[in-house]
Amino acid sequence: MRRVAVIGVGVTKFGKHDRTSAELFAEAARDALIDAELSPSAVQALYYGNVVGSETEKQLHTGPQAASVLGIPTVPTTRFETACASSHAAFRHATMEIAAGVSDIIMVGGAERVLNVPTAESTEYFAYASDASWEQTLGLTFPGVFALVARAHMAKYGTTEEQMAHVAVKNHRHGVLNPKAQFRKEITLDTVMTSPYIADPLKLYDCCPFTDGGAAVILASEEVARRHKRPIWVLGSAAASDYMLLHDKKDLSRVPATERAAAAAYRQAGLEPDDVDVVELHDCFTIAEIVATEGLGLFEPGAGGIAAEKGWTSLGGKIPVNTSGGLKAKGHPIGATGAAQIVEIVTQLRREAGQRQVDGAKVGLTHTLGGNTATVLVSLFGRD
Amino acid sequence: MRRVAVIGVGVTKFGKHDRTSAELFAEAARDALIDAELSPSAVQALYYGNVVGSETEKQLHTGPQAASVLGIPTVPTTRFETACASSHAAFRHATMEIAAGVSDIIMVGGAERVLNVPTAESTEYFAYASDASWEQTLGLTFPGVFALVARAHMAKYGTTEEQMAHVAVKNHRHGVLNPKAQFRKEITLDTVMTSPYIADPLKLYDCCPFTDGGAAVILASEEVARRHKRPIWVLGSAAASDYMLLHDKKDLSRVPATERAAAAAYRQAGLEPDDVDVVELHDCFTIAEIVATEGLGLFEPGAGGIAAEKGWTSLGGKIPVNTSGGLKAKGHPIGATGAAQIVEIVTQLRREAGQRQVDGAKVGLTHTLGGNTATVLVSLFGRD
Repeated sequence: MRRVAVIGVGVTKFGKHDRTSAELFAEAARDALIDAELSPSAVQALYYGNVVGSETEKQLHTGPQAASVLGIPTVPTTRFETACASSHAAFRHATMEIAAGVSDIIMVGGAERVLNVPTAESTEYFAYASDASWEQTLGLTFPGVFALVARAHMAKYGTTEEQMAHVAVKNHRHGVLNPKAQFRKEITLDTVMTSPYIADPLKLYDCCPFTDGGAAVILASEEVARRHKRPIWVLGSAAASDYMLLHDKKDLSRVPATERAAAAAYRQAGLEPDDVDVVELHDCFTIAEIVATEGLGLFEPGAGGIAAEKGWTSLGGKIPVNTSGGLKAKGHPIGATGAAQIVEIVTQLRREAGQRQVDGAKVGLTHTLGGNTATVLVSLFGRD
Repeated sequence: MRRVAVIGVGVTKFGKHDRTSAELFAEAARDALIDAELSPSAVQALYYGNVVGSETEKQLHTGPQAASVLGIPTVPTTRFETACASSHAAFRHATMEIAAGVSDIIMVGGAERVLNVPTAESTEYFAYASDASWEQTLGLTFPGVFALVARAHMAKYGTTEEQMAHVAVKNHRHGVLNPKAQFRKEITLDTVMTSPYIADPLKLYDCCPFTDGGAAVILASEEVARRHKRPIWVLGSAAASDYMLLHDKKDLSRVPATERAAAAAYRQAGLEPDDVDVVELHDCFTIAEIVATEGLGLFEPGAGGIAAEKGWTSLGGKIPVNTSGGLKAKGHPIGATGAAQIVEIVTQLRREAGQRQVDGAKVGLTHTLGGNTATVLVSLFGRD
């Protein structure tokens, strides 16, 4: 298989925008092209992630729309949807197109617009990623899903609400250092602990926000990448699934799809968890970060809460997690999230992360989760 | 690049079903596994097409749901959405995963459920594949889009409503021979010509129906395929896009994306249009078949209407088109359509099409169109 590198990245400011998701993507994509010193005409395919566009914008077929707005209307384009992991899925499939020798330069990205509809509506649309027959009918939405995960983790390992709160405090602290983050405001443990319950034991500050935004990365074959400064290499990229229905899962305190995808990605890269210097992972809720740090092998099962409490995942800690602020503070424009995580890791590995730079970062990892923990993608990146 | 073959196919009866799209897909997929003499555990990935599931079934994240229902919940799975071309896009991306050496056996398919909602609702949801800002707001739905195409073709080439009607009569005649078709009833020119106008000049019988259904094909690497009887080889598979907005297109009487995708697929296969023995193409409206036969190079621009009138595209004609009955008579469960077209071509190339068999068929082509002619995929298939 041919090697693949990231040669350009771009991301919009995350937050509230009065623009379509296609326009948000185009802004990020143009920044990525400038970053890669490429003209749009160099792009041979567009891999695009978007999730609830048909609900919030009455827009399907968002691939060619994004391509048209970007000014590359004739390139082959496909929309990928794997719930919140959509643009990470787009990224993985794009690496295979390059690996297969079909293309040399591919634009990957995603965008989402959700803040144009009321929160109750967005919450319902997001819940479409759970099972319509067995789960939505019971009123299950995602705060409820992760509340169940949290309860299972607390029961099995003794994880506390305070430990979860530490994740939020840390990611908000990181978000202050990221000019593109939705929330750039430090919070305290008390802020989290006194915030209202959304789905017990998860409180308002345990939950990531709704966000508009776009992100883009440009992939290239080794031959093309060698002509660019600062290529960041894709060392591995793997996907795994799990039962769609919560009632089919054996142990809600773990995410087997994370464990399987991580194992496959480490194997591809020939790396171990200890080799990773910086991680962007899917903290849609604080408990999700704790469970993910365990599933990725960064800590033993059950030690994720302790790691958060001790600051091991903070900038300057053993293994910095979500230096961008994560979904919690940077924001979570769902179709863009997977690509945005890659933007952060590429920025870190290039040593261009400014105040939030992880010293000497050589290997980075991104982890994105979709739906009821039914889809997970894990990718590993390295510098020359 | 490694060669790829289709080693199993399955399709549900098309029409009205009282089952979820995931269940429809699972039926087709089980038939494909039986056809390939494989157990579900042999499948290494699921590539899945579904379009309006979030509208008609309140279901996103349909990939892992379909995998769960099929009993392969842990394989990597991705949903693809390129409007009506979704499962053809899934197919093309799956060939790249095999070509890249990542997997050896992949399930590709799609499903759609739309007949559980009123026609006016389905029509609106389908229109989400046109532009929300500039087209939907004007009340444009797909009969209107293809009425504009028909008017442009009539004005430029003198194509007549009778010639379009011939397409409908021919595809209904073919549909009678297909046990899985939604409509198995011959119609006459008069049936079409006296049916009410839906969007002038398109009448009711110029339009394909709304349909529930599922389809699946199993792809394998050459090494695996050689151990199976009757492998049908993928000789080429290409995608192309065009401007999303009708007002950006220079000539509505042509579909440049068809011409570009066809040229690329022929180039990959080292074949010419004359080499093709049987074609399944995207006849969402009768005019779409006429324009597609031209874009695929089967006839000169402007000759598609004459070809329909003369019976050149009929079983027994110069180049049989839509022996399955096409979208017009077989039906159009949009997420399943691309895969269902491949099922028909594989059946033809295996010489298992019974009464609708094209004698001596060696090379087959599928063509699937998405949205406002903004996405097109073309694939070519051959037998040993």
